[in-house]
Amino acid sequence: MKLWQKTSGTAAEIETFTVGKDAELDLQLAPFDVLGSLAHTRMLERIGLLTPEELEVLQQHLKLIYKDIEAGAFAIEAGVEDIHSQVELELTRRVGDAGKKIHSGRSRNDQVLLDLKLFFRHQLQTTVEGVKGMFDMLQQQSERYKDVLLPGYTHLQVAMPSSFGLWFGAYAESLVDDMHLLHAAYKIADKNPLGSAAGYGSSFPLNRQMTTDLLGFESMNYNVVYAQMGRGKSERVVATAIASVAATVARMAMDLCLYMNQNFGFITLPDNLTTGSSIMPHKKNPDVFELLRGRCNKLQALPNEISMLLINLPSGYHRDLQLLKENLFPALEDIQRCLEMMTYMLAQVQVRENILDDEKYQYLFSVDAVNALVLQGMPFRDAYKVVGAQIEEGTFSPAAEVAHTHEGSIGNLCNDKIAELMQQALAQFNFERVKSAYQELLA
Amino acid sequence: MKLWQKTSGTAAEIETFTVGKDAELDLQLAPFDVLGSLAHTRMLERIGLLTPEELEVLQQHLKLIYKDIEAGAFAIEAGVEDIHSQVELELTRRVGDAGKKIHSGRSRNDQVLLDLKLFFRHQLQTTVEGVKGMFDMLQQQSERYKDVLLPGYTHLQVAMPSSFGLWFGAYAESLVDDMHLLHAAYKIADKNPLGSAAGYGSSFPLNRQMTTDLLGFESMNYNVVYAQMGRGKSERVVATAIASVAATVARMAMDLCLYMNQNFGFITLPDNLTTGSSIMPHKKNPDVFELLRGRCNKLQALPNEISMLLINLPSGYHRDLQLLKENLFPALEDIQRCLEMMTYMLAQVQVRENILDDEKYQYLFSVDAVNALVLQGMPFRDAYKVVGAQIEEGTFSPAAEVAHTHEGSIGNLCNDKIAELMQQALAQFNFERVKSAYQELLA
Amino acid sequence: MKLWQKTSGTAAEIETFTVGKDAELDLQLAPFDVLGSLAHTRMLERIGLLTPEELEVLQQHLKLIYKDIEAGAFAIEAGVEDIHSQVELELTRRVGDAGKKIHSGRSRNDQVLLDLKLFFRHQLQTTVEGVKGMFDMLQQQSERYKDVLLPGYTHLQVAMPSSFGLWFGAYAESLVDDMHLLHAAYKIADKNPLGSAAGYGSSFPLNRQMTTDLLGFESMNYNVVYAQMGRGKSERVVATAIASVAATVARMAMDLCLYMNQNFGFITLPDNLTTGSSIMPHKKNPDVFELLRGRCNKLQALPNEISMLLINLPSGYHRDLQLLKENLFPALEDIQRCLEMMTYMLAQVQVRENILDDEKYQYLFSVDAVNALVLQGMPFRDAYKVVGAQIEEGTFSPAAEVAHTHEGSIGNLCNDKIAELMQQALAQFNFERVKSAYQELLA
Amino acid sequence: MKLWQKTSGTAAEIETFTVGKDAELDLQLAPFDVLGSLAHTRMLERIGLLTPEELEVLQQHLKLIYKDIEAGAFAIEAGVEDIHSQVELELTRRVGDAGKKIHSGRSRNDQVLLDLKLFFRHQLQTTVEGVKGMFDMLQQQSERYKDVLLPGYTHLQVAMPSSFGLWFGAYAESLVDDMHLLHAAYKIADKNPLGSAAGYGSSFPLNRQMTTDLLGFESMNYNVVYAQMGRGKSERVVATAIASVAATVARMAMDLCLYMNQNFGFITLPDNLTTGSSIMPHKKNPDVFELLRGRCNKLQALPNEISMLLINLPSGYHRDLQLLKENLFPALEDIQRCLEMMTYMLAQVQVRENILDDEKYQYLFSVDAVNALVLQGMPFRDAYKVVGAQIEEGTFSPAAEVAHTHEGSIGNLCNDKIAELMQQALAQFNFERVKSAYQELLA
Repeated sequence: MKLWQKTSGTAAEIETFTVGKDAELDLQLAPFDVLGSLAHTRMLERIGLLTPEELEVLQQHLKLIYKDIEAGAFAIEAGVEDIHSQVELELTRRVGDAGKKIHSGRSRNDQVLLDLKLFFRHQLQTTVEGVKGMFDMLQQQSERYKDVLLPGYTHLQVAMPSSFGLWFGAYAESLVDDMHLLHAAYKIADKNPLGSAAGYGSSFPLNRQMTTDLLGFESMNYNVVYAQMGRGKSERVVATAIASVAATVARMAMDLCLYMNQNFGFITLPDNLTTGSSIMPHKKNPDVFELLRGRCNKLQALPNEISMLLINLPSGYHRDLQLLKENLFPALEDIQRCLEMMTYMLAQVQVRENILDDEKYQYLFSVDAVNALVLQGMPFRDAYKVVGAQIEEGTFSPAAEVAHTHEGSIGNLCNDKIAELMQQALAQFNFERVKSAYQELLA
Repeated sequence: MKLWQKTSGTAAEIETFTVGKDAELDLQLAPFDVLGSLAHTRMLERIGLLTPEELEVLQQHLKLIYKDIEAGAFAIEAGVEDIHSQVELELTRRVGDAGKKIHSGRSRNDQVLLDLKLFFRHQLQTTVEGVKGMFDMLQQQSERYKDVLLPGYTHLQVAMPSSFGLWFGAYAESLVDDMHLLHAAYKIADKNPLGSAAGYGSSFPLNRQMTTDLLGFESMNYNVVYAQMGRGKSERVVATAIASVAATVARMAMDLCLYMNQNFGFITLPDNLTTGSSIMPHKKNPDVFELLRGRCNKLQALPNEISMLLINLPSGYHRDLQLLKENLFPALEDIQRCLEMMTYMLAQVQVRENILDDEKYQYLFSVDAVNALVLQGMPFRDAYKVVGAQIEEGTFSPAAEVAHTHEGSIGNLCNDKIAELMQQALAQFNFERVKSAYQELLA
Repeated sequence: MKLWQKTSGTAAEIETFTVGKDAELDLQLAPFDVLGSLAHTRMLERIGLLTPEELEVLQQHLKLIYKDIEAGAFAIEAGVEDIHSQVELELTRRVGDAGKKIHSGRSRNDQVLLDLKLFFRHQLQTTVEGVKGMFDMLQQQSERYKDVLLPGYTHLQVAMPSSFGLWFGAYAESLVDDMHLLHAAYKIADKNPLGSAAGYGSSFPLNRQMTTDLLGFESMNYNVVYAQMGRGKSERVVATAIASVAATVARMAMDLCLYMNQNFGFITLPDNLTTGSSIMPHKKNPDVFELLRGRCNKLQALPNEISMLLINLPSGYHRDLQLLKENLFPALEDIQRCLEMMTYMLAQVQVRENILDDEKYQYLFSVDAVNALVLQGMPFRDAYKVVGAQIEEGTFSPAAEVAHTHEGSIGNLCNDKIAELMQQALAQFNFERVKSAYQELLA
Repeated sequence: MKLWQKTSGTAAEIETFTVGKDAELDLQLAPFDVLGSLAHTRMLERIGLLTPEELEVLQQHLKLIYKDIEAGAFAIEAGVEDIHSQVELELTRRVGDAGKKIHSGRSRNDQVLLDLKLFFRHQLQTTVEGVKGMFDMLQQQSERYKDVLLPGYTHLQVAMPSSFGLWFGAYAESLVDDMHLLHAAYKIADKNPLGSAAGYGSSFPLNRQMTTDLLGFESMNYNVVYAQMGRGKSERVVATAIASVAATVARMAMDLCLYMNQNFGFITLPDNLTTGSSIMPHKKNPDVFELLRGRCNKLQALPNEISMLLINLPSGYHRDLQLLKENLFPALEDIQRCLEMMTYMLAQVQVRENILDDEKYQYLFSVDAVNALVLQGMPFRDAYKVVGAQIEEGTFSPAAEVAHTHEGSIGNLCNDKIAELMQQALAQFNFERVKSAYQELLA
């Protein structure tokens, strides 16, 4: 039965259509819903809407429910509309009428807003950790293979010498920049919407700063109309941050597929990490890289989908917003799985040595030849013409030796500097504040 | 075990990641996979790759498997990779070695291409029927309420008289145009890819025209490289057609939400089709219209997502394409459910009479007043100024009577003409050809 | 001065912001605006709103203005808001008060709707012709190089033998399917919205069938509310059709960039069709293919952008719709230029012979070897294992001869059948009807 | 003539197609290109590639060119490919051979990367200032109208009391969160790519830290492969940040259009800020709000368009990237103009008083009534039923007085707290560092 149901029944067709996948998706919000209630009830007692005795019994049982959830012993029952109703129902079964009181001073609107913010904060932290894991692996491989040369392409044409050190390291540095978007999303998630009720506040004398502190938020969404407007916006920004990480993973997967191709042949994988063909017995396919690429490209469509749901909705809650969960929740899981899988695969990639011995790569060194003339005093444009003429006439002979020394070049990767940038990016997140707050709430 | 598995094992991590949701989604392809095999085996016998005896037993058991599928008594077993493997496995259990022969002359690539084309053809037919259902309801309501006037808005400002007849009828005609996109998608789905094997054809002397005819296709994808390239393209075009229908439904849902709003108050719904609020006892919310709007807006993001997966993939199969099913299959179900739900709701909508009595609508008739002066011989621009001056001075008094007679106007809705356009659009689909072909195949 | 300007002035800031790029873009609508007025005035005379004498002089001068437009001697003057006002202004200068009368019975809303439909019809025809040009070139190259073999890839791994005949031919057939979307767009553009006025019809006794016939439309948008709703929808469908053609061009461009890459080396271009590097004297870059790819990928984003502008706008005109022209008008020009450029480049592409001699392609023939065993009576799965074992042991020796004979395979390209499909697709368009109508209008 | 042109000519068709709109767009990069050269040449002298005398004359003339650019006296000549060539050409005309040397140690790839980073940094600063302007106006209006009540809607149904104070203030707070995305974009733009050459570094002993410092960058893109990969990524993140601001503006514009609608009638505009209709003399249309909405919705499609161009491009430069400028450069101008225009319009909006007197808003106070019972000790769920029953029976009589006191509610807007959050957000940008660096460079 729904809380808002009065005397007239809701048609069954409507029921099925409106509930959608909520029961399934909402389960992921369960621990956060309880954390929210732990803070909310302490605040209610402070402002006199719960007695100290009521608070004590509510806290005790909410913590027990939290343990059930952690143990996987909690489900949304058939006919119960959402996670908030299920927790309240469970509580009321255990403690009677006091259980009903936890809804005072809030609406399902701010309750779900809160659950989502806590959930996103958690998911972003896990994603940040996954990004860090892939970053470390990339830096490790960059150092390991720093002396193995690779042709560098521009316009997909053989251009200049590159190295596996550069190539692995580049994707590591890309993840540093992705971190800035994850941080922007985190900042937005890290503000407390609780107390905004249905988007217009409450006539109860709520203490919103208290729940803000108890839940370890950096700040609150002050304006209650804005707190509500954050629904959809938080989702869009979280999706944007995920999409940015996904773009890095997908692009690397594209490179990997190309490098596995026999015409490039720069890398190989152990047999057990490739798959075969039902009609071609010789095939060893890089399905994992293809699926990483596909899945991460798909994730890049998510911010747009979310915008589509939000565009031109006037301010105030609309039921459309419920649908935001459907693709975003799996996307959070997907990006984390992709980060793990890519990290695992990168550890297994086998790099081919002596790639540049092939004569098709001989012109890679033409720029270095031009530069050598310049260092001898010839103007660049003239040196360019000299080497160009040698190439046209077939008399160009490469030095085949790379001596690049400036910051970030083959001979000076600056992986330590990039690791520093990553550390600075990580230092912006204050995961410890959240952890302490939860420990105190659950103590 | 996978068909392509040889001696080395596939890591468990990889297994989980690569299989994804295929077992679940592929089940929807089961009947079409069997229909394909019914046609393929008859062709194999014709070209001498099966004996008449083998064909007979294979046909008999494929038809039994088809019945199992129809009865819901068929599943993809744990460890079986996809629907094709499951059908072949089941067949081999029943008839022994001959079961293995059905894979001759095809690859899983063209097998899944075929299954998808048959599946899309079927889903498009169901969607077309759903569109026709909503169309009929809209035309019925248009006729029923043709005399109930409504303010027409431009720039969301009160503009000119409209009517429920016009408003319902407009969305009916919108569905006619959507039908053109559904037809384009159907044309593309209605071409046989079977025989393209892994995208480069086969050294067997296949008779592709024969399977084209047996499966009731209008034509075939001749070029085998193009047949493979159709993967993704078919999906994109199907999604585009769905998105066009969804745009019509979503826009009408937006109107409905606005018209239910108390400031407009043009329509109401029976109580049992609205939902309430957990904190506001007076609320009667049009959640169904909001969810129709949201879901149909979400569907409009799908073509873009599909493009994201396809962009810049070189020709030839890539595993990324497997992910196309994930959001498209549910989307097909969603659009059909939305069409049904909207049709159901439209039947229940209650229309308010005498809306135009409110004085805020008095200027609706200013254009008609201008036109009346013009019909008396005054140039339009002058008449416009006269009436404009009356309005500025507050002396304008409307006729409050609508006499619009031209085609498609309030007094002459032309619903019959629009119904004719719909009939012409429907006549382009040849659903009968497919039905006959399947009856013959399953006989 | 604006037609709707009354006594109070419009702030200059507003003026600049609201007019936007209209003067520039609207010029492309000029000939169509005049064609519309030629038809509209004939209808106005028929229903008595113009005298025969007025009609004669209006027709005469509208035709002269049409000639000025064709001669490039027509511009939108500073301070004139749009093309409709400019034509009316010009006419009134020439014929006096009668010029003002042409606005009777229509609004700028249906006038721009009409101009856009006529414009899209024209642009779609030009695009169809461009598609046909590229199709012919592809078929020609497919026939020319039908015996030159190419490795076929799946998962970007060397898979099975393909040919330039197949590869060129595949993109030709892709264009046939794109034609179905162009046709859907054309059908939607080919319906007359004139007479819908501001979206709610008119109190004048308009004869909409007459203007429908005069302008060579297949039918009309009957319902006037729907006629207005077609704004945005036509644009979206036109963009979708363009995007489908663009997807074909872009994908081929990706293949071309890969095939030009030295690791593949399947094709080359004459030097004067490549560009160089400012620092690498050896570079010959396929910039044209890259820009074709980039531009055509960009075009694929357009339907989504249009949807973004339309989502959740209630029915009725909104000024937002004006912005639809900004990216769509250039996109129509872009796709046509891309089709021409690709056709030009395809004519110049030089194909490398004997590609398959390279030993990395030896396993291409493994499936044919499996099939040969099957034709000798071995079950497919067993033959697959035999050949698979040979490959693992290094004893596989390919036949290196391709004998594929079925429809659409290397030895039987069916280019004539594909040309037939193209002819059928073209036959659906009735460009002649439009041409005759315009000749009659301008006679 | 192009720098890379050797003996063979480039076909004219190609020329036109490849140059595109670059001459026009590149002009915006001109001052940044010169700033880059001022820093680059100082570095070249430091590492011995320029003599002190050459440096002096180059610096002198680069500064003169900078002044020309500032004065609008600089253009890209016909036949000159891009801004880099134009500056170099101009310099060589003035100082002879030394002018050619400024290209030493860099490629057009890192030169355009640098120009874009400097340009984005500048544009983001201007955007931040525009956001701050709108923020201040919103806060001002929020304070001014803090006591004017408004109905609050959920599901577009009359729900609870709101106020203009809340409504204006909500959009102000929304801009604070948008600032986090602008900051992420700024962080990514604020890293120096110069020295990455064509994406693989240089054999010259460049001092990249020196140019990083001279140009006022916070840091550099160390890895040269990543520096190149930043092309497209910077653009995407800048577009994302703009889109977030645009979403806030667009949503407010939607509210404004609705509130201007006669059925709501919450606000009005002075006549000179509305536009009229060519056929309806009474119309006063909010075109500016509609165009703000439309343009800002269009901007939200931009990140997706950019992704479309980037997806599945392997690492390394591709010419496709040139097209990124086309829609992004105008978008930067658009968002800034929209922010100004919205700020201007918000200053003019006239607010209606006593809106809640209308009886359709009587149930707004039902929650407060429920809460009053709760404060008297009744459990929430029971109080909810009591008030619900009163409403069903028609006996509900509202208190019509709002006493909301908690943080962010009607009676306690916390605009000062929100202004503090904005200050903190602004403090993260270090615009001063850039300004000082430029002053030093140009001194």
